[in-house]
Amino acid sequence: MDEFLAAAIDEAKQGLAEGGIPIGSVLVLDGKIVGRGHNRRVQQGSSVLHAEMDCLENAGRLSAADYRRATLYSTLSPCDMCSGAVLLYGIPRVIVGENVTFQGPEAYVASRGVEVTVVDNPECKHLMASFISANPALWNEDIGE
Amino acid sequence: MDEFLAAAIDEAKQGLAEGGIPIGSVLVLDGKIVGRGHNRRVQQGSSVLHAEMDCLENAGRLSAADYRRATLYSTLSPCDMCSGAVLLYGIPRVIVGENVTFQGPEAYVASRGVEVTVVDNPECKHLMASFISANPALWNEDIGE
Repeated sequence: MDEFLAAAIDEAKQGLAEGGIPIGSVLVLDGKIVGRGHNRRVQQGSSVLHAEMDCLENAGRLSAADYRRATLYSTLSPCDMCSGAVLLYGIPRVIVGENVTFQGPEAYVASRGVEVTVVDNPECKHLMASFISANPALWNEDIGE
Repeated sequence: MDEFLAAAIDEAKQGLAEGGIPIGSVLVLDGKIVGRGHNRRVQQGSSVLHAEMDCLENAGRLSAADYRRATLYSTLSPCDMCSGAVLLYGIPRVIVGENVTFQGPEAYVASRGVEVTVVDNPECKHLMASFISANPALWNEDIGE
């Protein structure tokens, strides 16, 4: 498996171990991870720190030039908010672990020039399926439903 | 002036007094402010806490039913990320102080069913014009340029 997707899955597992929603993300620049994060809804009572947002926050204030050669990995298809962050910063590539559990606005993001690749990873799907089965209300809250 | 827009402007001024980017936001539910915030790029080194995001974070974890009867106020037209947060949570109304300094994806947000009202407030415009004149690089960083 792609080492960066593996790192995003490690983040998802860390979130799960903390009692949180198992979604992880890493930001890669010039072949190195410059930010990593996972969903913090439970851990920090956060409504905005989805995995991708936590990852971008942890990456710190980067230049536009940096964002524009970066790749964002997420174990799950980015929602409207996280997709919007990708568009704001002009991140050109997004690698998505899976989009069966949930699918964000991938077509819209692609129409704005972002290359979105879905790898359909079984471990990403299993993490979410078992979590949602045990915590449906928490999951619905996370996606605004 | 609308008391809620006035509260958002107060948030923007508080951010300015802290050395930050003067953009403020409040979330209104059933006629009461349930969250308020301002841009935290400078104050917290944050790449994700735009005013609207800070406001939503400070509002805490709300139910989908709450978001769906809320109104988000922002002194400036919400960017792709903040507009995405509005879409994620199904917030049906956004009141925008001004969209001359910067215009987010208002037409797209409207196409997704959100009522976007731009009030073209002179104080909102003045706050941003004077800030950007003095801090162009910081402003460009905030909008990913």
